[in-house]
Parts: sequence; structure tokens; C-alpha cells
Amino acid sequence: MSSTFGTLLRVTTFGESHCKGVGAILDGVPPRLALTIKDIQPQLDRRRPGQSRLTTDRQEADRVTILSGVENGLTLGTPIGLLVANKDQIPSDYKSMQDIPRPSHADFTYQRKYGIRASSGGGRSSARETIGRVAAGAIADKFLRDQFGIDIVAWVSAVGSVENDTVDVKTIARDKVDQFTVRCPNDHSAHEMEKLILRLKEEGDSIGGIVSCVCRNVPVGLGEPVFDKLEAKLAQAMMSIPATKGFEIGSGFAGTRMRGSVHNDPFKQKGDDLVPSKNNSGGTLGGISSGAPILFRVAFKPPATIKRPQETVDFSGAPAVLEAKGRHDPCVVPRAVPIVESMAALVIGDFVLRQKMRG
Amino acid sequence: MSSTFGTLLRVTTFGESHCKGVGAILDGVPPRLALTIKDIQPQLDRRRPGQSRLTTDRQEADRVTILSGVENGLTLGTPIGLLVANKDQIPSDYKSMQDIPRPSHADFTYQRKYGIRASSGGGRSSARETIGRVAAGAIADKFLRDQFGIDIVAWVSAVGSVENDTVDVKTIARDKVDQFTVRCPNDHSAHEMEKLILRLKEEGDSIGGIVSCVCRNVPVGLGEPVFDKLEAKLAQAMMSIPATKGFEIGSGFAGTRMRGSVHNDPFKQKGDDLVPSKNNSGGTLGGISSGAPILFRVAFKPPATIKRPQETVDFSGAPAVLEAKGRHDPCVVPRAVPIVESMAALVIGDFVLRQKMRG
Amino acid sequence: MSSTFGTLLRVTTFGESHCKGVGAILDGVPPRLALTIKDIQPQLDRRRPGQSRLTTDRQEADRVTILSGVENGLTLGTPIGLLVANKDQIPSDYKSMQDIPRPSHADFTYQRKYGIRASSGGGRSSARETIGRVAAGAIADKFLRDQFGIDIVAWVSAVGSVENDTVDVKTIARDKVDQFTVRCPNDHSAHEMEKLILRLKEEGDSIGGIVSCVCRNVPVGLGEPVFDKLEAKLAQAMMSIPATKGFEIGSGFAGTRMRGSVHNDPFKQKGDDLVPSKNNSGGTLGGISSGAPILFRVAFKPPATIKRPQETVDFSGAPAVLEAKGRHDPCVVPRAVPIVESMAALVIGDFVLRQKMRG
Amino acid sequence: MSSTFGTLLRVTTFGESHCKGVGAILDGVPPRLALTIKDIQPQLDRRRPGQSRLTTDRQEADRVTILSGVENGLTLGTPIGLLVANKDQIPSDYKSMQDIPRPSHADFTYQRKYGIRASSGGGRSSARETIGRVAAGAIADKFLRDQFGIDIVAWVSAVGSVENDTVDVKTIARDKVDQFTVRCPNDHSAHEMEKLILRLKEEGDSIGGIVSCVCRNVPVGLGEPVFDKLEAKLAQAMMSIPATKGFEIGSGFAGTRMRGSVHNDPFKQKGDDLVPSKNNSGGTLGGISSGAPILFRVAFKPPATIKRPQETVDFSGAPAVLEAKGRHDPCVVPRAVPIVESMAALVIGDFVLRQKMRG
Repeated sequence: MSSTFGTLLRVTTFGESHCKGVGAILDGVPPRLALTIKDIQPQLDRRRPGQSRLTTDRQEADRVTILSGVENGLTLGTPIGLLVANKDQIPSDYKSMQDIPRPSHADFTYQRKYGIRASSGGGRSSARETIGRVAAGAIADKFLRDQFGIDIVAWVSAVGSVENDTVDVKTIARDKVDQFTVRCPNDHSAHEMEKLILRLKEEGDSIGGIVSCVCRNVPVGLGEPVFDKLEAKLAQAMMSIPATKGFEIGSGFAGTRMRGSVHNDPFKQKGDDLVPSKNNSGGTLGGISSGAPILFRVAFKPPATIKRPQETVDFSGAPAVLEAKGRHDPCVVPRAVPIVESMAALVIGDFVLRQKMRG
Repeated sequence: MSSTFGTLLRVTTFGESHCKGVGAILDGVPPRLALTIKDIQPQLDRRRPGQSRLTTDRQEADRVTILSGVENGLTLGTPIGLLVANKDQIPSDYKSMQDIPRPSHADFTYQRKYGIRASSGGGRSSARETIGRVAAGAIADKFLRDQFGIDIVAWVSAVGSVENDTVDVKTIARDKVDQFTVRCPNDHSAHEMEKLILRLKEEGDSIGGIVSCVCRNVPVGLGEPVFDKLEAKLAQAMMSIPATKGFEIGSGFAGTRMRGSVHNDPFKQKGDDLVPSKNNSGGTLGGISSGAPILFRVAFKPPATIKRPQETVDFSGAPAVLEAKGRHDPCVVPRAVPIVESMAALVIGDFVLRQKMRG
Repeated sequence: MSSTFGTLLRVTTFGESHCKGVGAILDGVPPRLALTIKDIQPQLDRRRPGQSRLTTDRQEADRVTILSGVENGLTLGTPIGLLVANKDQIPSDYKSMQDIPRPSHADFTYQRKYGIRASSGGGRSSARETIGRVAAGAIADKFLRDQFGIDIVAWVSAVGSVENDTVDVKTIARDKVDQFTVRCPNDHSAHEMEKLILRLKEEGDSIGGIVSCVCRNVPVGLGEPVFDKLEAKLAQAMMSIPATKGFEIGSGFAGTRMRGSVHNDPFKQKGDDLVPSKNNSGGTLGGISSGAPILFRVAFKPPATIKRPQETVDFSGAPAVLEAKGRHDPCVVPRAVPIVESMAALVIGDFVLRQKMRG
Repeated sequence: MSSTFGTLLRVTTFGESHCKGVGAILDGVPPRLALTIKDIQPQLDRRRPGQSRLTTDRQEADRVTILSGVENGLTLGTPIGLLVANKDQIPSDYKSMQDIPRPSHADFTYQRKYGIRASSGGGRSSARETIGRVAAGAIADKFLRDQFGIDIVAWVSAVGSVENDTVDVKTIARDKVDQFTVRCPNDHSAHEMEKLILRLKEEGDSIGGIVSCVCRNVPVGLGEPVFDKLEAKLAQAMMSIPATKGFEIGSGFAGTRMRGSVHNDPFKQKGDDLVPSKNNSGGTLGGISSGAPILFRVAFKPPATIKRPQETVDFSGAPAVLEAKGRHDPCVVPRAVPIVESMAALVIGDFVLRQKMRG
């Protein structure tokens, strides 16, 4: 298992869905940064289950404790320990899934790889693992905002076939996104998305979606070619989030259908420097930030755990019908928004530190 | 700069487009593997420029030398040094681009990040950097094939709007792919793609495309959650290839529009074990290989360097028109096929070694 | 700050002397290993302050909690979270040291490097940081003992000028070592060492010492040349323990005075394999374990914090006399024994996993 | 095999004693540093065999080629490829050693670990592997000298029982050291050392020795607690050099016999800052450089390959007498001086870059 991410800003997460707690150690945070729980808890609140009728009904408060690394409201430059206690366990919900590996879920592969798995919930493959990421990411986010004015905002741009591309990436802000339960900042689309999610929830089914993200005010020069290109580490970070199936930056897959003469972003002068005059590149060139906003999209599949009966086989190979008990999300994208932001902050935070060595 | 990739099987590449040579050190290759240049050169030949009228007219033989790590045709378990000499330089071709940063190219960001850049070609952002990857990847590929029967095959599935999804992922083989100059193994689509590329070449323009890849016979259990999920490291590897803009595995972005009850892949018995009965998941569950073929797609943008005049600004900010000299690829995907295979082999090879520690 | 150690078996420690707690995340532990707190607590008890009159009088129970990674007494293969709460703080003890950097202590360098430091105790430079190492090391130790019969035993071989080299490295065991408060398993030497330590404690002074360690039954083949030689990673591990000033393996510094014809260890047959017939090499050849016991020694300086007045300067450069308050160890080696064993277990455990990839 | 060292300044070495060549890739070198072969070759010349009658009689020119990363005499910020061709092979010299593992040499452990080994010489365990380190280290050395005025000087302080501690660590310089063939900058000791080495050479035997090193003008604040303490990474670096058996910093093993009140280095004012008024600590406190010179010593055992007959067993276990053919060093320390300097430069260079992120 590989639970550490980053070179100079390094997060290590721990915890299963049903042990004593989940959390993270964030090492490499610069010293003398003002930091309290108030900088961390809001992102955890945006991630937590039970926050709206669109999500699972499980209620988890997910209050974070800072174990170390901060004194008198200032970071010490030492590892910051972050812990969220586990609660609200109904292990009996998972009984039916003991013998039958959930289709498209990690039950099967964890069992095969490790020869054992957490008795309930998804263990480390559970969405609960992302709590550590969000807590750590909130700290990276604050560092980037306070020291560089970097602004990272994600939102829902698709739920199933309901897509929305009306967002102004220059101005979109988290409070605007949060005015919509589904976190798609458009009245019409949000309404359609919510309707769709609620219908699937009622049907015991699930649906996928897309989260888009913009990172503004990222200085020119971040990213370490050739293997740690900015987009390469963003891709790894996003594809490490449970349920993700795709990543694209800038023009992405649509850009493959364009000609170079159309796709290319000519430069223009801006202040003392150059900037791309449009942004098909999505904010990086050759793996290095260009000064343009970083724009990327992450595809999330429909959650695997659904109440509708599924014909499959049990671990012994015998035919079986699985009807998942418990309270599961019909669609993960509303809660995935702060996770995407957090992973982006961890990636960019690491590159900021790696770049400063040249300063 | 971060030129090393992998945890136990580790490749380090070096070389600019116009220094003495490019190459790689591949460390961690198991000992006593039969290996000669004949195992490496064919993939380099599939990558080299000038191999067909669809690619740049630059002729580069790209003959590889094994510097170390092999004796009497067997690997020693020590680092394998790989060197390809540089030739065929026409630095004057790059004169016009000295003062004008190519739109959507890394000239600008390299200059800003490093305060210097290779005087010609793209330096480390050049496609020439991928020679080291392909040479090293060919070794990983042979190791995987010989020891595990793992079979990695990539092909072109789109050039511009010409798409092809007729490939049978269970049987497609490299020699079949190579029967088509454009490396799309379908008569009709290949013809259309070639026509499109030649037209754009004539127009001094360029076009994007998509490379698909399948990895067969990958044993269950590869991948290291949570941050080194199999798909996460594949995503990093692919997004580190020049000109890539997107990565998707299994159902990818299309999967976001599906319901869980449709998207989920129920299990069935196969021999003594279970396998997914279909493969929307693309061969991984929770970041771990499931035994199903690994299926992914990589989006390549149209090459940035085109002959058509582009209105932009020079480094000083003054308006300028750039007409690139030199011989550049109108579309990279035919030559990208072995690069994608090589990076896949490096990722899977690393995970094979990381998994064996549990054996 | 770099708080992570290891490649496949990776420990990350956190915590200052006076925050909520200290601990570690140990990632990479193989699954299905029997593990309870009883496997961990004894080594923490051997490390804890206040265990005898030879150590500081501070009483800290240092009870460990397993936060994650273990269920029903078996490891899951997931990161094991380990937490020990902090108690017994008397911050006022540290008042006098706020303005005056302790000579030969990290107060000065932490302040210069980070521009801030923990308000009391030594922060991360405190011996308290080693709690996480010992808790994690106890798990590695159990893994090595249960799976491979590897036996790691450390003892005190010198306190000041009182040296002892009577230990039989083939048979020495931890319970034998623990029959002596000072952890030197020799009646006469132990008595002299204890007398010396108590005298210095009374005088408000301190004294250095040496910890020796043997690792038995280490299989042939561990260690990864060239930079991760077994002795190189052992050296890093030991020199990362607070207060260490030297490391030697086998003949060590004394070996520099020997001729090759005397120093060389000829081979002899043993069972089906060869082993060195003597052990000046200390159990490794070319950075790889040879099958002979691994033998090394670690030098610890006298603790920097002493009650005797010291003439120095304060942070402003003004002359000052420092008389440390608080309860400090007059000699660290008795408590360092389990720390040395733990770091050795973490190093060897990592190499066992790295070697298994070849199995 | 683990052939890469460093976090931001990363060296990867390759090459056996008798393949096409040996060398290194040095990644992370800051851009725009003036660099030519003249900055590298002198250290290789100080390392090369055959440079004096004290070393092996093998003549190897060891001329380095820069493959990449430098253009017009300036570094590009990209990986610098370094290659030295192999020559002067007399494989027949190694015939007798094919069947008999040399006592205290890596023949045995390489064979057991990898199941194969280079047919002649020591393969990767050969001193020839250090060519890559010295070439890369010379670049790090120049970077540190040019940008920070850091001055790294090593010398021989003992050969067998002939010790010398008269060196003034404030002023000792490389040209002074090189006035003595044995690289001990003291007339009397040098004479005695040379006599001893020549006698052992004549007798077909060998002898160990100690290399001391000082690093001056190292800024305060380098080193990354807790596992990457400055002394911990120096220890790893030095103990990764072939034939090393011990490392000590500052007072080292002798310091274990001192009282804290004597060992402690009080601070004094110097300019605007504090510095330790003496240097038992050897230039680090808590793993971080203190501004005082970094002082350490490295123990080298007598070379294992000697001409005198040795009674041992062959690989099959049968009694055998080994008389090594070939031309081997009777004592490695004169040639080890630039190797120690190079590894020190690589360690400090890495920490300089890691520290700058805080700048």
C-alpha cells in the first residue's frame, strides 16, 4: 500500500471506514503559517455525508483534531497530524456483502491482493479515506491562498447526461458553488441534476458525473518535467480519488479533433510578461504552468454500491443476487468537489515548494 | 527537473534534442533476463521520425547502444544504460523561433522556469526525449512478456474527427497494427486518417488524435492504493508524454453518463477464480488490477509547431508572425503508439515488482 | 522537514514534545500478521522516561493506541496509525531556555531554520519524537521475528570510559539485557556504569555511551547497492536518532588498522551454503547481507541539557549563564537500546520486502 | 539495485567494471551554471588508478564526456549525462576468482542476491562504480563553491596505525593535500604512511585507513529532520562508498567518553549571528547545520583483494587457496579523498536546494 503523496509537501493518509479514526500527516508545511481548525473544518463539512438529501443519509460530523505541528495558531514547520474519529457504524449493513464481492467495487481486488479486507465498508477503498486528503488539502489550500493568492475552485459540470458549461472560470467562487446543493452553479442545470439524482436515489440506482476545476493566479514556472509535469501529477492525484475514470486538461479529448492552427494559443503581452491569449492548453505548456488559469475536468463513474438487485456470483463462484443494504450516495460529484480542490492544492503546493528552490 | 519515474523499476531519462545523445538508465531490472539490442531497437524504429510519409521527413536512425547492465546476453540486475546518439541537426531551422515563443509550445515556460533553454528544438520538451522512455520501456515490455505473458498493444483510435472503435481488444496484436502506416488497424478508418494527415501536412497544419491501449494477462493484484493506484500511475505516465491532454480508463468520460446498474460489471467464475463479466471498469477496481484486460485511452493535441503563419508576440511582447521552419509531424499519434506501450510497460513492470514482495 | 523513512515499509512520525500527542503511521506492513498492543507496548516501556533511577524522573506512561490498519488482531495491509498522548507537561521548566539557546542543542538551529520553535521541550528534536519510531519498529520487529526468525538485540557496551565487550553476540537476548538497569549485560561493567551515571546525575552533568546491536538470522541477499547498501541505510537510520555521533559496522574504525590478510573473513561451508568463517565484515559484503550476524555500534554523545551552569550567550548575543531546569537524562544509552533495535527492524524490514520482489 | 541518490539534486550511476562505460546522470542541477569538462576532470584524475606508485598499477585515463544538459558552457537545468569509457581490461586476471569467492568481497553476496555477477572485476561493487559519483560530485562541488562559497576538503588522517591529527581544518585546501602522494598533508605522517603502503604492496597485502573531511561556509539551516538529518544523509552517503566500515561526526566515538559540561559547545556572537565557540558537534545540531564547519571521518577497511594466498572455500564449498591476480590497490584512502568530497558535495547540494524552498 502506498499512502504517501508528494515530494516536499507530503501527505500520508491512514484509516479504514470502521477503525478508530481516519486522518493524515502533512509534512513539509512551511513554518509560521497561521492555522486553526477553522481553516480545515469547512472543507470537511462540504465533504461529509448527510449534508443534503442528495447524498447518503449517513450522518457523520467528521470533526477534525490537530494532533501536532501547530502551536499558538502558527505552524511549526513540523508534520501536522490530523485525526477524525469514526462513528455511526452499522456493520450489519455490510453482512450481505461479506460473501458477495460488489460488482465494480474493490471488495474483490482487496481480498485477492491482501488476502484479507476490512470487515465492513470499503476499508481503504472507501470514500472515507478521502477525509485525510481533504483535511491536509485544506491546509495546502490556505498556504497557497495566503502566500500567493492562488485560488482553487471546483464545481459539478455534469451529472449523467445533464451537462453545464456556463461557468465563468475567471470569477467562479466557492460560495457561489455552494449556493446550489448539487454544486453546479447554474439554476437550470442544478435543478435538472438534482431531479436526476433524487430519482435514482429513489430507484436504488446511481449515476456518474464530472467535476471541473480552475486554479487561478498560479505563478509561471510550476511543474517538474519530464515525469512530474504539472498535468501528470494532477492526473495521478485525481485518478487516485475513488470512482474516477478520466482526467483531461484544457481542450482535453475534444482538442484531439482540432487543427493546430486553431488549437494553438498565441501569446499576448500582459503587464511585463506574456500570457497565452486563449487557453486550450489549460494553463500548462510542456508540463510547466504558463500563467494562464489551470483548467481540468475529472470523470466520476456511478457509485458501485446500489440497492437494486444485481445478478453476480459470490466469492465461491456460485450465482448470487446482491442487494446492498446501508445508506450510499446515488452520485458522488457534489461531495467530490472539495476532494478535487484538496488534491489540486496538494499538487500545486508541492510544486510551489519545489520551484522555490530556484528562487 | 524530475527525470526519474518508478519505485522499484526506475527509469531516468536524459538528453536534449541537440546535445551528444539521448537515452536512459533503467534500474531494477531483474537479473538473468535474456536481453539484446534486438529486443529494444524495433520499438525505437516504430517511434523514429521519417519512418513514413505521415511523419516528419527528418531521417534519424536512432540506433541504441547498451552501455551497461548486460553481459553475454543476460541482464546482471544492475542499471542498464541506454544511449542513442543525436544526428541530423539543422539548428538554422530554429533561428526564427529564437525570439518568438511558439504558441502552445514549451519554449515560453522553459525560458521562464529555467531562464535558459536549449538553443534549438524543444530541448527536454521535444519528442526526442521519449527515445529514452521507449528504449527502457522495451526492456520492461520484454520482461513482462517473457515472465508473465503480459501483452501490451496500443493503436490509433482517432485522428481528428475520424474515429474507429472496431478493434477487438482480445486479439489485437502489434504486427496487425503495423500493417497500417497510421497504426489504426481498420482499412476504412486508416485510409481516412491518412488522407486527413497528408492534407494537413500539405497545408502546413496539424491535427490531434487518440491512442488506445490494452494490457492483457495482467495478474490480479497489481497497483498500490491509495495514491499509487494502477490507473493513477498510468495517468501520470501517459500525461507525462509530450502533447497529451487527457487520459481515461474503461468507460472513462462516457461512463459518467451511465447508471450504476448498467455500468457495474458483475462477476462470473473463470477457472478457479472470478473475473468481471464485462469491463466498464477497464481492468482495475479500487486501483488494483482485477484480471480483466486493462483498457485506456490517451488524448494527443495537434502538434504546436506548424508551418502556417501564426500571429503572436515575440519574447519582448512585440507583435510577430511565426512561420516555423523545419520538418515537423503533422500528427503525432502514429509515432506515439510505441511510446504509450513503453510507458504502460514501465508502470506495470514497477507494480509487478512491488507486488512480488507479497509473494 | 522529512519525517518519512523507508521505500516499501515506510514509517512517518509526527508530534512535538508538548502537543496533543506523538506517533507514527507505518505503511507497507504485510497483511494477515497477528498484531495487538501487547506486541508494541513492551518496547515503549523500555524506552519511556522514569523507568529507573538512571533516567530522567519524568513519569510518562506512554500508552499506545492503534488507530487503524488492524482488525480482529490481524493487520489489513493498510497503514497502521499509532498514537501516544502527551502528558506531564511543566512548560515553566523551559522558561529559562526561551531566550538562551542550549549549547550543543537544536534550539538554535531549529530557530534559524524555521524561524519558530516549539515553546518548550525540544520539539521534534526531543527524544519524545522517537516514540513513533519505537512503536512502528516494534511492529517491524514482530514481522521479522515471526516470518523469518530474525532476532534483533541491542545493549549498552559503553558509558563514558566504562566499556564492556564480553557479550556473546550469538546468544545475547533482550531479557538478559533487561536484567540490568543500565542494559549492559555484565555484572561488573553494569555496576560501574550505574555508579558513573548516578554520580553525574547528582552533579547535574551528563555522559555519553555506546549501544551495540546484533541482528541474527538475517537471510543472505538483503540490501540494495549502490546507494541503499544495508550498512548505508543502517547508518542513516542510526544517525537520525537524536544525540548520535557515530556508526560503525563489523571491525569499524578498529578495522582501519588491520591488514587485509588478517581482516579478511574466509568462507567456510555451512549446510548447503557458504558463510564467512569470522565476522570482521559485520554481516554485509558489498552492501548485501552475507548470512553472518549483522553487528554494529552507535555512539551517543552526552545529553546537552544539564543542570550545571554553562556560560554562553542568549539569542541576542548577550553573555548569559544557563542552568537548565526540568528533569533530564544524565545518559541516554539505557533508553536508546529499544530505539536502536526499532530503527534496525525498520531498515531490515524494508529490505526484506524489497528483496522479496526477486523471490 | 538502488542506483539513485538525492531528493532534488539526484544522481543515478551506472556501469560495471568491464562493460562499455561507467557514468552518471545528475538531475536537478540549477540552470545557467558555468560548466565544462575542466570542472569535472581534475577530480576524476585524483581518483583514477595508476596515478602514483601507492595505487594499483592499472592505467586508466578515465576521460569524461558530457552527454547532455550543458550548452555553450552553461547548464540548462536538465539532466547532465556523464560517460567514461571502459578500457584496459585483462579479464584473464579474474579467471582464478570465477570459482572462488574472494573473502570479505561482494563476489559471494552478488552471486547469491542476483544469481549472476559480472564475469570480471567487482561489477557494481567495484571501485570503478565511484567514477559516476565523482563526476557528478564535481558538478555539485562547483555549484556549492560558486554560489555559496562552500569549500569541501578531504584528506587522509590515518593509514593503518599511522595517524595524523595536525591538520588545521580552517585552512586546509586541496592543493595542499595534493602536495603529498598519500594525501596526508603532514610531512612526517605522509612519509610513514607511504612507507607502510609500499611495504604492504610488496608483501601482496593491504591496509585500511581513515579519510577526514571538512565542509566550510555551509550556511545555517541545512538538513531535514528527522530522518534526513544532515549527519544521517552524510552517513548514508559515506557508508555507500565501497570498503567503508564507519562514520563519525564531530567528537564521534571519542565524544561518548566526555561529560556534557565538557562536550557542550557554548555559543558566542559572530557578526550578527551566533556560532558555536568550539565544535565537538561537528557542525550540526539536531540534524541541521549550525554555521560551524562540518567535520566528519570515514573508516575504510583494508582492500579485500590481495595477492597473498588465502585459505578459503570455492563456491561449491571445497577447500581452496586464493591468490588474486591483477593489479589492486594496497590501500584505498589516497584515491578515496575525491570520492568522499564528491559524496559530501552531493549531500550538501541536495540540502541547499531543499532549504531554498523556504527562502
